[in-house]
Amino acid sequence: LATLTARALPGLPEVRPGDDLAELIAAALGGRALTGEHLLVIAHTVVSKAEGALVELSTVIPGARARELAAEQDRDPRQVQVVLDESRQLLRAERGVLIARTRHGFVCANAGVDASNASVADTVVLLPRDADASARALRRRLFELGAVSGERLPGVLITDTFGRAWRHGQVDVAIGLAGLAPLEDWRGRRDAAGLELQATWLAVADAAAGAADLVRAKDSGEPVVVIEGLGRLIGDGDGPGAAALIRPLEEDLFP
Amino acid sequence: LATLTARALPGLPEVRPGDDLAELIAAALGGRALTGEHLLVIAHTVVSKAEGALVELSTVIPGARARELAAEQDRDPRQVQVVLDESRQLLRAERGVLIARTRHGFVCANAGVDASNASVADTVVLLPRDADASARALRRRLFELGAVSGERLPGVLITDTFGRAWRHGQVDVAIGLAGLAPLEDWRGRRDAAGLELQATWLAVADAAAGAADLVRAKDSGEPVVVIEGLGRLIGDGDGPGAAALIRPLEEDLFP
Repeated sequence: LATLTARALPGLPEVRPGDDLAELIAAALGGRALTGEHLLVIAHTVVSKAEGALVELSTVIPGARARELAAEQDRDPRQVQVVLDESRQLLRAERGVLIARTRHGFVCANAGVDASNASVADTVVLLPRDADASARALRRRLFELGAVSGERLPGVLITDTFGRAWRHGQVDVAIGLAGLAPLEDWRGRRDAAGLELQATWLAVADAAAGAADLVRAKDSGEPVVVIEGLGRLIGDGDGPGAAALIRPLEEDLFP
Repeated sequence: LATLTARALPGLPEVRPGDDLAELIAAALGGRALTGEHLLVIAHTVVSKAEGALVELSTVIPGARARELAAEQDRDPRQVQVVLDESRQLLRAERGVLIARTRHGFVCANAGVDASNASVADTVVLLPRDADASARALRRRLFELGAVSGERLPGVLITDTFGRAWRHGQVDVAIGLAGLAPLEDWRGRRDAAGLELQATWLAVADAAAGAADLVRAKDSGEPVVVIEGLGRLIGDGDGPGAAALIRPLEEDLFP
C-alpha cells in the first residue's frame, strides 16, 4: 500500500455565514490542484459556520425540560434547549454531560452543539444539517472552481470530535463524506495462512479523520487537512456517505 | 505542525514464539535507524506470538459456564472458555458476540482473543499479558540492537482492532505504549477568539493507531508501520502507557 501523508492547509481565513468555503479552500491551496489521490479533511466547524448553522443564545427561550435538565446538570438552560432541539433522543444526562443521539443519528456529547469554536461569545455552533450533502457540495464546487486536476475528484471528509465509551479522550470521526468509502470490507477474506480474517470491517473514514487531527493544533485555525495515499478508497461516485457508519440503536449492543 | 507520514515496513518474516521481535524489526529496517521523530506502530498479533500468548484449543477443557454460553451464542465452547479466562467481566453476550472487559481493563469483543491471525488452525491469539511492558521492552531492545540513532528513543505503539458503540466498523486503538503520550491535553486553553476550547483531551495514541492501519492491508503480513511527524508527542520517558486510556467502568456513562 502507498504511504499516507497528512498536511494541514495553512492560510484559511476566519469563516463567516454565507462564505463560499470551497472558494476559500481553493484560494488557500494556491495553485496546487487536487486529484483523486487527495482527501480533504475538514473540521465541521467551518462548514457549519459557512452554512450559518449557528445559534445566538440570546434568541433561545428554554422550555420546561431544558430548564429542569440545566438545573440538574448545572448548565446554561439556553444551551440545553439547543441540545434538545438537535437531539432525536437523550441517552444520558450525568455529571454535566448530555449524551444524545442527534437528528442525523450520531451519538455524541451535547448532540454536537459546540460552545467553543463559535468565534463569538454566547453563540453556539451546530452540526451541519446534512454533512454528507455538505461534503458532496464541496466536492462538486471545488471541481467547478478549477481546484481539481485530472479525471478523478478528490474525496471530502467532514469531521467532528467525539468521546468514546470505555476509553478516555476524544477522537475525530467522520460525520460527512463524499467520494471516500466509509468502510473497507475484508470480511470473508483469508490471511496469509488461509484462515478467515476476523477484524475485517474497517471504519477507514473514522481512521482518516483521526489521522488528520494529529497534524492540526486545536487552536491553530487550521481546520483543513490534506491527506494523500488513500486513492484506493476514493471513488468517482460520492458513495454512501458517513450515514453508513451509523449503527442503529436497535442493532447496538450498547443502547 | 509537521507533516505526518505513515509507511508499512515490508520484509518482516512470520513471527514465532520465542522470536526476538525487536531483532526482526531491526533487520526489516535494514540500515535505517529510528529517531525520536519515529513512532513504531505494531499490530499486537506479532507481539503476542513472539511472547507465546497463544492457546491451542485442543488443550482447553471448557467449563459449565463456557459450554452454556457457547450453546446460547453458537460458538466453540473451548474458544468461549479462553475468552472467559481473559475476561475480568463479561458485559454482553448477544448475536454470537461476547463483549468483555479484559484483565487489562480494555472493553472489546471476545476479550481480544483472536481466532484468525494465529497462522495455525485451532490456535487462538491472546492479547499480550501487559502490552505497555511489551512496548517498553521493545523500545529498550531496539536501542540495544543499534536500531536507534541520536539521543532520543522512538515511540512504540502496540495496537488491536476494536469495534465501537453506536458506529459500524472497527478501528485500531492503542493497547500498549512506550514513549508516546496517550492523550494530548488542550483543556483550559483558548481558541483564536479567546473562548475556552471544549473538545480538548485528545486520544492521540488511538488516532495514531488508526492512521497506521490505513497503510497496511489486513492480509499483507505487514504488522509494523513507521509514522513520522509525531515527535512532539514522544518523550524520553516511557510515559503512562495505554493504561491511561482506560476509563474505569464506574466512571463511564455507558457501563
